[in-house]
Amino acid sequence: MQKSLDFQTIMMTLQRYWAEKGCLIWQPYYSQVGAGTMNPATFLRVLGPEPWNVAYVEPSIRPDDGRYGDNPYRFQQHYQFQVILKPDPGNPQELYLQSLQALGIDPAQHDIRFVEDNWESPALGAWGLGWEVWLDGQEITQFTYFQQAGGINLEPVSVEITYGLERIAMALQGNYHFKKIRWNENIKYGDIHYMGEKEHSTYYFETADIERLRKMYELFEKEAELALEKGLVLPAHDYILKCSHTFNILDTRGAVGVTERQALFGRMRELARRTAETYVAQREQMEFPWIDTPAISGASSPHAITVQTSSTSSLPDKADFLLEIGTEELPAADLQSALEQLQSTLPAMLDDVRLPYQSLQVLGTPRRLTVYVKDLASRQDDQTSQIKGPPADRAFDQDGNPTQAALGFARSKGISVDQLTKQEIDGGEYLVAQVHLEGKPVSEILPEKLRQLVADIRFNKSMRWNASGVAFSRPVRWLVSLFADTVIPFEYAGLTASNASRGLRFKDADHHPLDNANAYFDFLASHNIIADTGKRRDTIRTQVEKLLTSVNADTSVDTGLLDEVNNLVEAPTALMGTFDKKHLDLPTEVLVGVMKKHQRYFPVYSRDGDLMPYFITVRNGNDAHVDIVAHGNEEVIQARFADAAFFMREDSSKTLEEMLPKLDSLTFQPDLGSMRAKSERVLEITKEISIDLDLSLNEIKSAERAAFLSKADLVTNMVVEMTSLQGTIGKFYALRDGEPEQVAQAIEEHYLPRQAGGKSPASKPGLAVGIADRLDSLVGLFAVNMAPTGTKDPFGLRRAAIGLLQNLLQLSIDFDLQKGIQTAAKIQPVPVTENHQHAVFEFITGRLQNMLLEEGYRYDVVNAVLAAQGANPAAALRTVQALEQWVKKEGWNEILPAFSRCVRITRDLGQTFSVEPDTLLLQETKDLYAGVEKARVALEKDRSIDTFADQIMALTPTINTFFDNVLVMDKDENVKNNRLAVLQRVSALSDGLADLSHLEGF
Amino acid sequence: MQKSLDFQTIMMTLQRYWAEKGCLIWQPYYSQVGAGTMNPATFLRVLGPEPWNVAYVEPSIRPDDGRYGDNPYRFQQHYQFQVILKPDPGNPQELYLQSLQALGIDPAQHDIRFVEDNWESPALGAWGLGWEVWLDGQEITQFTYFQQAGGINLEPVSVEITYGLERIAMALQGNYHFKKIRWNENIKYGDIHYMGEKEHSTYYFETADIERLRKMYELFEKEAELALEKGLVLPAHDYILKCSHTFNILDTRGAVGVTERQALFGRMRELARRTAETYVAQREQMEFPWIDTPAISGASSPHAITVQTSSTSSLPDKADFLLEIGTEELPAADLQSALEQLQSTLPAMLDDVRLPYQSLQVLGTPRRLTVYVKDLASRQDDQTSQIKGPPADRAFDQDGNPTQAALGFARSKGISVDQLTKQEIDGGEYLVAQVHLEGKPVSEILPEKLRQLVADIRFNKSMRWNASGVAFSRPVRWLVSLFADTVIPFEYAGLTASNASRGLRFKDADHHPLDNANAYFDFLASHNIIADTGKRRDTIRTQVEKLLTSVNADTSVDTGLLDEVNNLVEAPTALMGTFDKKHLDLPTEVLVGVMKKHQRYFPVYSRDGDLMPYFITVRNGNDAHVDIVAHGNEEVIQARFADAAFFMREDSSKTLEEMLPKLDSLTFQPDLGSMRAKSERVLEITKEISIDLDLSLNEIKSAERAAFLSKADLVTNMVVEMTSLQGTIGKFYALRDGEPEQVAQAIEEHYLPRQAGGKSPASKPGLAVGIADRLDSLVGLFAVNMAPTGTKDPFGLRRAAIGLLQNLLQLSIDFDLQKGIQTAAKIQPVPVTENHQHAVFEFITGRLQNMLLEEGYRYDVVNAVLAAQGANPAAALRTVQALEQWVKKEGWNEILPAFSRCVRITRDLGQTFSVEPDTLLLQETKDLYAGVEKARVALEKDRSIDTFADQIMALTPTINTFFDNVLVMDKDENVKNNRLAVLQRVSALSDGLADLSHLEGF
Repeated sequence: MQKSLDFQTIMMTLQRYWAEKGCLIWQPYYSQVGAGTMNPATFLRVLGPEPWNVAYVEPSIRPDDGRYGDNPYRFQQHYQFQVILKPDPGNPQELYLQSLQALGIDPAQHDIRFVEDNWESPALGAWGLGWEVWLDGQEITQFTYFQQAGGINLEPVSVEITYGLERIAMALQGNYHFKKIRWNENIKYGDIHYMGEKEHSTYYFETADIERLRKMYELFEKEAELALEKGLVLPAHDYILKCSHTFNILDTRGAVGVTERQALFGRMRELARRTAETYVAQREQMEFPWIDTPAISGASSPHAITVQTSSTSSLPDKADFLLEIGTEELPAADLQSALEQLQSTLPAMLDDVRLPYQSLQVLGTPRRLTVYVKDLASRQDDQTSQIKGPPADRAFDQDGNPTQAALGFARSKGISVDQLTKQEIDGGEYLVAQVHLEGKPVSEILPEKLRQLVADIRFNKSMRWNASGVAFSRPVRWLVSLFADTVIPFEYAGLTASNASRGLRFKDADHHPLDNANAYFDFLASHNIIADTGKRRDTIRTQVEKLLTSVNADTSVDTGLLDEVNNLVEAPTALMGTFDKKHLDLPTEVLVGVMKKHQRYFPVYSRDGDLMPYFITVRNGNDAHVDIVAHGNEEVIQARFADAAFFMREDSSKTLEEMLPKLDSLTFQPDLGSMRAKSERVLEITKEISIDLDLSLNEIKSAERAAFLSKADLVTNMVVEMTSLQGTIGKFYALRDGEPEQVAQAIEEHYLPRQAGGKSPASKPGLAVGIADRLDSLVGLFAVNMAPTGTKDPFGLRRAAIGLLQNLLQLSIDFDLQKGIQTAAKIQPVPVTENHQHAVFEFITGRLQNMLLEEGYRYDVVNAVLAAQGANPAAALRTVQALEQWVKKEGWNEILPAFSRCVRITRDLGQTFSVEPDTLLLQETKDLYAGVEKARVALEKDRSIDTFADQIMALTPTINTFFDNVLVMDKDENVKNNRLAVLQRVSALSDGLADLSHLEGF
Repeated sequence: MQKSLDFQTIMMTLQRYWAEKGCLIWQPYYSQVGAGTMNPATFLRVLGPEPWNVAYVEPSIRPDDGRYGDNPYRFQQHYQFQVILKPDPGNPQELYLQSLQALGIDPAQHDIRFVEDNWESPALGAWGLGWEVWLDGQEITQFTYFQQAGGINLEPVSVEITYGLERIAMALQGNYHFKKIRWNENIKYGDIHYMGEKEHSTYYFETADIERLRKMYELFEKEAELALEKGLVLPAHDYILKCSHTFNILDTRGAVGVTERQALFGRMRELARRTAETYVAQREQMEFPWIDTPAISGASSPHAITVQTSSTSSLPDKADFLLEIGTEELPAADLQSALEQLQSTLPAMLDDVRLPYQSLQVLGTPRRLTVYVKDLASRQDDQTSQIKGPPADRAFDQDGNPTQAALGFARSKGISVDQLTKQEIDGGEYLVAQVHLEGKPVSEILPEKLRQLVADIRFNKSMRWNASGVAFSRPVRWLVSLFADTVIPFEYAGLTASNASRGLRFKDADHHPLDNANAYFDFLASHNIIADTGKRRDTIRTQVEKLLTSVNADTSVDTGLLDEVNNLVEAPTALMGTFDKKHLDLPTEVLVGVMKKHQRYFPVYSRDGDLMPYFITVRNGNDAHVDIVAHGNEEVIQARFADAAFFMREDSSKTLEEMLPKLDSLTFQPDLGSMRAKSERVLEITKEISIDLDLSLNEIKSAERAAFLSKADLVTNMVVEMTSLQGTIGKFYALRDGEPEQVAQAIEEHYLPRQAGGKSPASKPGLAVGIADRLDSLVGLFAVNMAPTGTKDPFGLRRAAIGLLQNLLQLSIDFDLQKGIQTAAKIQPVPVTENHQHAVFEFITGRLQNMLLEEGYRYDVVNAVLAAQGANPAAALRTVQALEQWVKKEGWNEILPAFSRCVRITRDLGQTFSVEPDTLLLQETKDLYAGVEKARVALEKDRSIDTFADQIMALTPTINTFFDNVLVMDKDENVKNNRLAVLQRVSALSDGLADLSHLEGF
C-alpha cells in the first residue's frame, strides 16, 4: 500500500490539481482572516461579471476555536484550501470529487456526503447555499454557491470549495489528532503548531487587553473609512479584515454583548458593502478586462449528451412516462416540499392538457425528483368547440356579402365564411365557428408544460447557479424525460432533457442512458437506490431497530430525525458506532444535541431511558467497508465530545456566582451597561413582580436567586461555544454548584419559550425571571431608541414580547403589563419617558393583537377587549373567548343595539352626572335605574363578559321601553342630566371589560 | 523551445524542488511583513541548536517601495521565496544554483554572480553576511548566513536564501515589466496586482492617517509587551511585526524623524530580543525535541573526497607547493586584505619552520586564495642545539650520583645522564644537554602550520557557518594542499585538504583533481580564470578601454571601481550596454551613483566630460551569449533610472520652499521638535555665526537662504529613497526652482564632509550652515541627555563634531566654539545648562585631540595647545604645528627648563602680584623685568608660538642668571612678592597660546 500523503504534499497536490484545471494559484492573505473567503481573491473577485478561477491555501484564524492544543480537531488556526470557480463550470461537485481521488481518497471505501449547510458572513454581507461535505461523518469541505457578497447579488454565481486540510490529512493518514498529522517526512503538525495553539489560545482567551483592542478596532475602522473616501478598495478591505479579527478576539475574551455585536456587524457590513460597490465600479470603469477569460478545463458541457430520437410519429397509444429532475444534493426539507408540490401539480397539469393516465407516482432522493406516470396517453383527445364571432347583423352588408368583420373572423379561425353558422347567444344573434381541435401528441404538448412544472417548484430558499438565471433549491444537473423509449426533450436551467440518468455517485459513469421509461426501476435497484421515500424510511427504521436490538436498547426511533435522515440518503445502510463511556458524564442535552443536531446520529437509550455509549448513523451506499465508515464517525463524535468535555472542565474552576464578575466585560448595550448590570436589573424587577405574579415565599426566594445567577452561564466556555445551550448549561452548573433544584430550573426556564410556540416555563420562578428579563430588554432598548423598525429587529424584541405574552396566556396568569413596564422603567440607567413606556406598551399589545387574530378571533372582538384589558393579556384572552361566544349568539342582535343606544347618547358628554334617584320623574327611568343598579351589583360580584351580557340581556326590554317612551333631552336641564346620568351608568357596565363600540353593529 | 515557466509554476517548482530536498513547505505569514525573514518560521526557528529546513512563499510588503504600479521593478508588494537551511548543508550555493536550473535558467547563457551584501534588520536585532545573487546585473536572490537574531548568536548558523520571484520571472520570460509577467495561462501579474500597487501606494504615501497609525503602533507595542510578560512568544512576535509594518507606513508618510527612528528601532529590537530569548528558553525546556532531525538530502559530505596518497616517504628534495583555499565569493575588500596578509605571513611561516624555497606567489579570485611556492624543500635542515639544565652543584649528590634534578632533566630531553655535559653559562656552571634535531619532512611540518596560516587570516567582518565554529570572511568549501603530486593534508573548517580544486562555476564538476601542483595553472587557464590579480586588472582595463574607444569616449578608467570590479570576477569579460538618452536629464550624481554604487558599472563620459548613455559591466565568464547578459543589464539600469525619474517627477510639483511645511511631520527628536523647527534654529544660528565667520554681505544672504531651505529635500521622494543624496538633491531642486547658484551650492555643501576625510565645503555659506546644523544637533541632543555613550552614538554626534572640526581645520578658519555653543544653546526649545554646554565643548575638543593625535602630533604638544586654544580649532592646529617644530629644535632643551622654572615657582601662588619696577633691588631682577616687557610687546604684535619661543629663547640667559644669583624667597615679603610678580609676568607670556606645563621635560 502506498504511503498516504503528508500534509504539505496534500497542499501541493491540490495546487497542482487545480492549476491543471486552469485555476490561478494564489497565496494566503497577509492579515489574519477567519476564512479564505475574506481574501480579496475571493471576496472581491466574485463580484461583477468577469470569470475568475483561483485556488490557494489560507491559514485561517478563529480565536474562539482555540483549545490550547488539547482538542484533537479544534484549533485557533486551521489550514483551508480555497477554490473559486466563476462561473459554475457545470460539474463542480465532480471536479471536487476527482480532487479527493487525486489525494488518494478511495470513494468506494468511504461515506462521502453533501450535507445541507448554508453559509453567511454577517461582517461581509455575504451568503450562499451549499453543503458541508462529510467524509465518514467528518466535515472535510465547505461547498457553497455564493449568492451575495458585500450585499451585492452575484452574477454569475461563484462556486466556493473550501477544504479543511487537517481533517483531510487525518482521514488520509488515519491519525485522529492534529498533533499526529505528518507534515513531511520528519516533522509532525503538532511539532510546529502545538505551542502556537497553546500560546494563542492563552492570548485570545485570557491575555488580550480589551480596552486596547477596542481602540484598535476603532482605529482600523476609521482607516477603512478614510480609504473608502479616497476610493481605495484594497486598503479599505484590509482594514475591514483587521476590524473583523479584532472583533473576534474581543468576542473570544467575552467582551462583546449581544447588542454591541449587532452594532459592530452592522458597521463592518456597511463598510464591506461600500468596498464591494467601489470595486465593481472600478472594474466597470476598466471595462471588465477579464470578461473573455476562457472556461477552466474539465468543465462540463451541458449539451454534450446525445438525445435519443425515436420518431415521435410512431408513439404507442399509451405508455409509461418518466420525468427525473437530477440535482445536486437537496436539503431534506426542500426534498420533502418538492415532492409534495409535484404530487399536486403534476395531476393538475396532465388534466389541464387532457392527457389521461392510469396512475402516477412521485419519488425522490436527495439527488433526484422523479415522477412516474403509468399508461399515459400519447395524444390528447380530439375536441370540437364553438367560437362566438361578430353579431350577425354586422356580418353581412345590405347585399348579403360578408363584411370585413365576418371575413376576418373566418380567416382567424382558418375556415371559410361558408363554414360559419348563426346562433343565438344571450339574446343576440352571432356568427359562430365550429372549430375542431385535433388532439396533439405528448411530444408536442409536454415540453413546455414540463419546463413549467419544474420551474414552478418553489423552495423556502432557492439559489441561482448558472447563466440561465433560474432558481432552484440546489443546481439541477440533468433531466430525464422519457415516454416509453422516446425522449420528450425540454429545456431548463441550460439543460436539455434526455434519456441519461445518473446512478449512485462513484458507482457509475456520469451518464447512464435508459432504454425506456420502465427500465428506470431496475436501474435504480442495481445501484441500491430506493427512490420511494416511504419504502426508504421503512428500510432505515428496520435497520436502526435491528441495531438497537443488538445492544438491547430501547427500540423506539425518533420520527423527526428519521424523516430527516431519510431525506439525506439514496441508498441507506445504518451502522452503529460507539464512544467512550466517560463522555456520559456530560449533560445529556449536550450529548444528544451534538449527536442529533450536528451529526444526524440516532442516540441510543437503554430501556430505562439512560443514554448508552452508542450511536447509529446511516450511510449513503452499501455495507462495503462499513468498518472504515464507522471508525471515521467514531473519531468525529469522540472529538466533538472531547470538545464539550474541555469546556466543562474549563468551566469547573468557578461556580456560577464566581463567574458573575466576568459579566462586567460583556456589554449588553453601551448605554445600558454590561450584562452584569442587566442581570442586576432583572433581579430588581423580579423582586417586584414576583408578588404580583402571586409567588409563594419559597418561590420568591428561588426566583431572586435564579435572577441573580440567570446570566452567569453566558461567560462559560460551554455557552460561548454552543449559544443554544444558554440556560440549560446554567441549570447544569447550578446543580453542580449545589444550588436548589428550583433555582436551577428557573435559570433554565427563564429562556422559555425558546421559540414562538415552544414550551413555557413549568415553574413560577422561571416565569417571573423570564418576564423580568424581557421587560428589562424591552424598556431599556426602547428608551435608547432601539425599538424594532420595519423588518429590522436586531435585538429580538419581537421575540421577547411574544415570549412574554405566550407564557402569560398559556399559563393564564394575570399580570399588569403597565405596572411591569413602570417597574422596569424606574431602574434603567437612562431616563425612560412616558412616551417610551407607552411605546413599549403599544408594542406588546400590538403583538398580542396579532397573536389573537392569528388564533382566529374576530377582529372587532379582539379590538374591543384590548381597548379595555390590553394591560392584562391573560384576562384579555379569557374575555375575548367569552365575547366571541356572545357575539355568535342569536340574542346578541338585541342586546348590542340596546346597550349601544345608551352608550352613543352619552359618550360625547364630556362630564359625568350623578343620578338623583329621588327626582327621577318617569317610571321608565326609575325602572332603568333599578335595572342598572342590579346589574352593577352582579358585575361587582363577577366582573366577566358573561355576567355583563347576562345583565344587559335582562335589561334590554327596560332599555328599549325607556327609549320608546322617554325623551331624554328634556327642556329642564336637571331632568335631562338625571336621565343622562342613568344612561351613563348603563354605559359604564362594560368598563374594564371591553369597549363594545369596536364591535360590528354597534 | 519550451515555454518559460509562468509565475505560479515558478512558485510550485521551487516548492517541489525544496520539498524533495527535505525542506518543510510552509505558508506566508498572516500579518504584513517586509520579508520572509520575519515569518516565525525563520525568525524564531533559526534560534537554538535544532535543525530546521523550510521553504515558503512570502508576499512581502514594503510601503516605501510603492510606485503606484508605474515602475517596472519596484512595488510595495513583492513575492519572496524563502528557504532556510539549518545547519549549513555544506553546499548551499550549489543547491541554490541547481534550483535555478530547475526553473529553466541555463547558467551558460547568463552572468550569475554572488555580490557582497550584508544584511541587517535593526528592528529584529538580526544580521548576517552573504550576497545578492545577480543574474545579468539584476538582483534575483538574497543569500545570507545568519549570524544573529533577536540579538542572540546563532549556533548553528542558518543559511537563508530569499528568491525575488518577480525578478526571476522577468528574466525567465523576458518580460521586463512586472505587469507583463505571465502568472498563468490566462492572466498576467499586472492584471491582478496593478490596482493594488496603485491603491496601496496612494494609501501609504498620501492617505494613511499619521496620528492614528502612531496610536496603533503604541497599542501593538503594549500588546507585545503584555504577551511577553505572560511568556507568549508567538503573540508577542505577531505584534512586533505589526509594530514594524506600522512603522514602515509612518516612515513612508515621511513622519519619522532621525532620532525617533532610532528610538523606535531600539524599542522593537528590545522586544525582539526578549521574544527570542523566551523562545529559546521554551525550546530548552522542551529539551530541544528536533535535535536529531536528519540532514536534508543533497547535503554535501565534506569528507567525501578521496585524498590522493602518494607515499610521503618518497618526496623529491624540492618541488612546487600549492595551497588553495577555496571559498564562496569573498567580498572585494576581504579578498584584497587576505592576499596582503598571505603575502607576509607565508614567507614568515616558511622561514620559521626552516623550509627554504626559490620564490613564492600569492594569487586570488573571489573564490580562491592561492599560494604557489616554487622549489620548496621537502624537508627541514637538521639542527643541533644545546639546552641548559640544573646548576651543576645540584646535579649530583655527595656520592656523585645524579640527583632527581639531573635525572629528570635528562629524561625530559630523551637522553641518558651520561650524555649530559657541564658548561659555564653566565658565570655559573650548569648541566647541558646537546640535542640533535633531525629535520622533518614537509608532510609532518606543514599540516599544523598551514592550518594555522589559514586560521590566522583576519577580516574586517567575519562569519561562522558550520559546526567547526571557525570564522572567515565567507565559508571555506575546499582546500588544496599539494607538494608535487603529494597531498599534504590538513584540517580546517571541517574540511580536509586534498588535491581537488574547483573550476569556474557551471563549467566543471564540483571537484577537479589535480595531478600535481604545477598542473594548477593549466587548469585555471582551461577555465579562463585569471588568478593573478594584477594581470586580471590589466585585462579588465584593456577590455574597458577598448569598449570606451569604440564609442569615442573618454578612456580614463576609475581606478577605485576597477580595483573593486577586479575583485568580483575570476574570468572577466567586459561588455557595454546602453540606456535611454532621456535619462541623461537626471542629475549626474544620481546616474553615476546608481551605476557605480548599485551596479558596479563603469559610467561612460564623452571627451568633454559629459555622461553618455552607455555603461560598461564586467561579467564573470567568457563572451558566450554576451548579448543576453548585456540585455539583462540594460533592463536593470533602465528600471533603476526609471525609478529615479519617477521620484523627480513626483517631486517637481512643489518648490523646495513649498515643501517646508511637510517638515513639520518629520520628527527630529520628540523634545527638540520637528525637522522644520530644527531648520528654523539652523537659520538663527547661521545668522549669528556668519558674522564671526567673516562672511560677506552677499554670502550672509546666501547662507541664510540656504539655511532656510537646507532640510527641505529630506521630504522629497528622491531623498526618502536615496538618503545619501541629501543635499545633492537639495542643490538640484534649488537650481530648478531658480534659487541663486550660491544658495544651491550651500545647501549641498552644508553636509560636507560626508565622511571623515571627505571633501569640505568650497563656499563660506556652505561652511556656515554646516556648522550651524552640527552645533544645533550637538547642543540640543546633549541637552536632552542623548550624548553618545560608550560605543553607542545613535545620532552620529561624533561624526557631526568631526565634520565640524575638519572643515574649520582644512579651511583654517578661526571660530570660537564656546561662543557658537552659547548661540545654539540660547534657542533650543529645552533648557541647556552650563554643564550641558561644557559637556558639548569637552566632547568637541576631545574629538579634536584625537584628530590631532591621529595626524601624528605629539601627545604633550597637543595637550599643551588644547589647554589654551581648544575653543578655536584652526588656531590650535596652527599652534600645534609650530610648537611641534620648536620642541624638535636643539635649543628647546634650554628654553623649556628656563621658562618652566618661572612657571613652577609661581603657579601655585593663588594670587597675582603687581610689579613695582621702582623697588626692584637686584640688577638680575631688573634685567629680567626689562626682558619680559620686551617679549610682551613683541607678542602683542604677533601672538604666535614662534614669537613666544623666540622671545623666551632670547630671555633664557637672563632667566638662568636670575635664578643663579637671586633668592626669590626673600625674607622681606615685599621683596619676595615683587620678584614673584616679575616671574608671573614671564609665565603669562604663554597665556592663550599653550599650557607648556603639559610638555615633557617641563
